[in-house]
Amino acid sequence: MIKVTVIGGGNVAYHLTKNLLDNKFVKVVQVYNRNIEKIQYLEGKTLITDSLINLKEAAIYIISVSDKAVADVSSKLRLKNKLVVHTSGSIAMRDLKSDANKGVFYLLQSFSKKRELNFSTIPICIEAERKSDLKLLETLAKSISKSVYHVDSKQRKNLHIAAVFVNNFANHLYTIGSEICEENNISFKILQPLIEETAKKIADLHPLKAQTGPAKRSDTDTIEKHIIRLTNNQQEIYKLLTKSISKTYDKKL
Amino acid sequence: MIKVTVIGGGNVAYHLTKNLLDNKFVKVVQVYNRNIEKIQYLEGKTLITDSLINLKEAAIYIISVSDKAVADVSSKLRLKNKLVVHTSGSIAMRDLKSDANKGVFYLLQSFSKKRELNFSTIPICIEAERKSDLKLLETLAKSISKSVYHVDSKQRKNLHIAAVFVNNFANHLYTIGSEICEENNISFKILQPLIEETAKKIADLHPLKAQTGPAKRSDTDTIEKHIIRLTNNQQEIYKLLTKSISKTYDKKL
Repeated sequence: MIKVTVIGGGNVAYHLTKNLLDNKFVKVVQVYNRNIEKIQYLEGKTLITDSLINLKEAAIYIISVSDKAVADVSSKLRLKNKLVVHTSGSIAMRDLKSDANKGVFYLLQSFSKKRELNFSTIPICIEAERKSDLKLLETLAKSISKSVYHVDSKQRKNLHIAAVFVNNFANHLYTIGSEICEENNISFKILQPLIEETAKKIADLHPLKAQTGPAKRSDTDTIEKHIIRLTNNQQEIYKLLTKSISKTYDKKL
Repeated sequence: MIKVTVIGGGNVAYHLTKNLLDNKFVKVVQVYNRNIEKIQYLEGKTLITDSLINLKEAAIYIISVSDKAVADVSSKLRLKNKLVVHTSGSIAMRDLKSDANKGVFYLLQSFSKKRELNFSTIPICIEAERKSDLKLLETLAKSISKSVYHVDSKQRKNLHIAAVFVNNFANHLYTIGSEICEENNISFKILQPLIEETAKKIADLHPLKAQTGPAKRSDTDTIEKHIIRLTNNQQEIYKLLTKSISKTYDKKL
């Protein structure tokens, strides 16, 4: 039984706490949030607190707050010789400002409060200063998910940038797709199967090989016909991504 | 029983023919390809030919060839008073050069020969000059898929552009994600669950509402830290998409 305390009440903390409460290898000792009302729903399931002083004894303290608050929150902890980890993709392990032993427990997924996720497939990227702590984090991670990776702070930063491309930016392309549909009285739902297949396909086929379309085959006729139908902002993006695809395959447009 | 002839042997024709051969409401009368060896595997299952002259009698002739070949192939057909349709997203119905009755039967999905697809969820966009032909296409489409839409040539062109954004361009962002991972000795597989969740999420949540990340929250600190780690080409794309997200939410960076 691993004793865990969760510090935070945002999307990640919410889903992680929920998952840990159902995890038979874990005991959630306490959950902290600066605004206690946000975690009131946990009363009866675990201890809750809005004070970082005198936290109960646990084996791992998981700080799951906004990136900006990690340094401040960690500096207030008095947990010397305890293991304190954060869950951020973009912050280095050393940015934990604490005399505790440090580590990272990064869940590589996009969380919204309303959407249930299957934790067993969420990649967990772990890092720790001490070998024994890494082992403990590995045990915890494996009790949650089948995908556990050792990822150092530099790799994790780059992974987070890659995630911006495949998640934030891909979603923005979906937004543009929805704009084009809505301007033309087409239900955006028509594109959903294509969007999901595009994502699933690359589990089997490297995206370099999965690429199709007018940019890949240097079909300037189609490209020109597309561009004149777009808004200025859409045009800029269309042109730049077309140029980039073209370069990737060493083609000239 | 609808009698159908398929003209073409590419990815779409391959999967469509396979599906129609298993469809109990359809009889595949004949399949044409200019290179008959490519469709030799169909021998015994249907008639095959490499001649567009004297095609057998059918109710619908489906031209599924490359966009560039549609005009040429259709102009060679002698099928007056028959229904001839193409399967292209970017070509207008009137671009069928034929004295036949015209229509369109557009399967909105990304096809690769090797990947099996569930046809029952593929959106089929139909159009026809004559009402009775539209009804026939609708019957055929509904025998294949649960998602059948009436889409005119102008709408279909715009739909095809939207598909370039959500499929071709999204896939290119996956390629960039894979580059970043590979440069840093990270398995690209770590990103697969995030990529699939990003795609699935917007079935429930409009992409405008699903947007997250540093551009959305105007986190210039993180944005600057990301940009310095990227190649020139990646930087250009990062900056433009960040600017576009920022504009979409009326924020200033």
